[in-house]
Amino acid sequence: MTAFDTMWAELEPIGRAADTGGYRRYAWTREDAALREWFSSTAADRGLTVTLDRAGNQWAWQGDPDVESGLVLGSHLDSVPDGGAFDGPLGVVSAFAALDALREDGFTPSKPIGVVNFGDEEGARFGVACAGSRVLTGALTADRALGLTDADGRTLADALTAAGRNPADLGPDPEAVRRVGQFVELHVEQGRGLVDLAHPIAVASAIRPHGRWRIELPGEANHAGTTLLADRRDAMVALANLVLTARGVAEHVGGVATVGKVRVQPNGVNAIASSVTAWLDARAATEEQTRAVVAGVQRVVAELGGTLHEESWSGATTFPQPEQLAGILGGAPILDTGAGHDAGILAAAGVPAGMLFVRNPTGVSHSPAEFADRADCLAGVDALAMVVERLAT
Amino acid sequence: MTAFDTMWAELEPIGRAADTGGYRRYAWTREDAALREWFSSTAADRGLTVTLDRAGNQWAWQGDPDVESGLVLGSHLDSVPDGGAFDGPLGVVSAFAALDALREDGFTPSKPIGVVNFGDEEGARFGVACAGSRVLTGALTADRALGLTDADGRTLADALTAAGRNPADLGPDPEAVRRVGQFVELHVEQGRGLVDLAHPIAVASAIRPHGRWRIELPGEANHAGTTLLADRRDAMVALANLVLTARGVAEHVGGVATVGKVRVQPNGVNAIASSVTAWLDARAATEEQTRAVVAGVQRVVAELGGTLHEESWSGATTFPQPEQLAGILGGAPILDTGAGHDAGILAAAGVPAGMLFVRNPTGVSHSPAEFADRADCLAGVDALAMVVERLAT
Repeated sequence: MTAFDTMWAELEPIGRAADTGGYRRYAWTREDAALREWFSSTAADRGLTVTLDRAGNQWAWQGDPDVESGLVLGSHLDSVPDGGAFDGPLGVVSAFAALDALREDGFTPSKPIGVVNFGDEEGARFGVACAGSRVLTGALTADRALGLTDADGRTLADALTAAGRNPADLGPDPEAVRRVGQFVELHVEQGRGLVDLAHPIAVASAIRPHGRWRIELPGEANHAGTTLLADRRDAMVALANLVLTARGVAEHVGGVATVGKVRVQPNGVNAIASSVTAWLDARAATEEQTRAVVAGVQRVVAELGGTLHEESWSGATTFPQPEQLAGILGGAPILDTGAGHDAGILAAAGVPAGMLFVRNPTGVSHSPAEFADRADCLAGVDALAMVVERLAT
Repeated sequence: MTAFDTMWAELEPIGRAADTGGYRRYAWTREDAALREWFSSTAADRGLTVTLDRAGNQWAWQGDPDVESGLVLGSHLDSVPDGGAFDGPLGVVSAFAALDALREDGFTPSKPIGVVNFGDEEGARFGVACAGSRVLTGALTADRALGLTDADGRTLADALTAAGRNPADLGPDPEAVRRVGQFVELHVEQGRGLVDLAHPIAVASAIRPHGRWRIELPGEANHAGTTLLADRRDAMVALANLVLTARGVAEHVGGVATVGKVRVQPNGVNAIASSVTAWLDARAATEEQTRAVVAGVQRVVAELGGTLHEESWSGATTFPQPEQLAGILGGAPILDTGAGHDAGILAAAGVPAGMLFVRNPTGVSHSPAEFADRADCLAGVDALAMVVERLAT
């Protein structure tokens, strides 16, 4: 059993739902604490020094990054609801495994090497994706972050307190950012680009612009049996119009739009919905296209008497010098992606950041069915090791 | 303060949600236990004998209904999610208040008088409306009832055990039914019929046919940012089509159809919905029309790759002799209704059952905004007292 397999097996049960086989690993929950504990002890086993930044991200350092900034690998350990095992953890496990392989080869890096576990990448609980890296770089203010609420109406401030953290400590951490001379995030691909290219590993060129918006649709609670259709204000009918509009506008503009999460009040079989909260995820090749999708949706939301609030927005992010990483890997293909990542947040903040993608044979992600071949995962570990060997010599 | 006001004030805080002001009183929960405790002690205060039938309904008797069947008043105490204060409790409180008034007047009934609290009328937790009266009369078998599950996957059998009841005891109770010589349920109107007639009290002629159906819509979990629209199987888009179809078919046929409750998997902002469970409530003037609505919905569900399951069905119910009650009340108007009631279940089982409606100034029901004027409520108490005086002399 390789170190990779051992770590994979250790993570396997944490936050796995018995009914779906998917993962429910949300920020500042018990499952998150177990993942953080795993990260700390895995790092300690390797003699790395673990620190927590002011944004709640975990860093494991070999060498002193306050003396000289270092090369950082890693990703995140949290998941979407009923997510797969690979989205996030593959990058963290592969980082540790690459360092293990380099040590076995007797390689001594010329600069500090770090492994990072970014907190709350998926935003599954509080609604803002990449919350850990956004707070770290200042893209998300502490005030706004602390006021975010989960489905139970609990604020991030409350959740931090419950997790034993002081909410007043939350904030940007320029010192932690300064320690990162370069960041390389490995991630399972979330599409079929590498399948089509018949290649196990790619380098990311860019993250397409994307964002999420919260939409409040009003209705009027009333009895499903005694209220004439003409007398109704049915928020579920408004939702139906929203969902079909979002898809139609995205088709027209050329992009993708998704309503994946809804909250219906009162959600009773014989009660007309009095309100629906729906979340829109929209992405396209350009910022103009993405904004056009949202504008089209907003028009219909206004007609429905509703409101639309931007919860997060990430403009197009171009990674600097993907050719450098592709060259180190002997000419790996270069792909862009529609998925947001912490590496994109860091790149937008001026950190030299890049990404490697590991082939996903079905392209499926954010699903219990998400998968990558073990051989491709090990090729990813090798690729990270090659990157460290070349960038830290 | 009248006895009515006192009882109303006692019930007011039980199961009231602080955020909406609506009631969440679901079967076999802590709130339900508090309501049952209230019913028992309110009955005991009046020297009534409280029994529980095999279906979990509570009965409070004055006189021995095993010697001679009696006249029963009452309704239910549970609620829909975020329901109002009147739907159900008004009938129970008014029943006790009517008996109080008759005693004060020195009236001694010639036969046993009962007050009933039917369990789980709304079906808010386990999905089957009028579950208490249906099990009582055998319209719902114990086997099927015990296997019903709530949103957390808990069966009714488990819920009964947790509430200190033996699931094996659940079943029809013909003896309890035999004790009911006649049943009169008072209920807040759930429409504006009495407003239009400018009358405080009506008598029910019939309950229009109605039912509820569970619909499973399949999708395929995938990443909202990286999956092309053409490659998606989005269960939320299927839901949108279902909701609009249900409304369109109901409009066409002449009836009402409502999707008020949905469950979305995995319900994540950046995850395409992998499945949606939706509940359809359909009602119309005739059984043929109601069946036509469901058939129209079923065609679209099949096209969407989904399935439709009947959770409950109540054919048209005609109350025997509404003219008798209307005559006692000096010529009260006679109305039909689209809402199901325990009185309808009993009538369908051959029990002489009738209903009184109390004017609802807005017509709103199943909502925190549900309301009836105190003067109309007291007119309802007087009406029940007149009914007892005439039928038990």
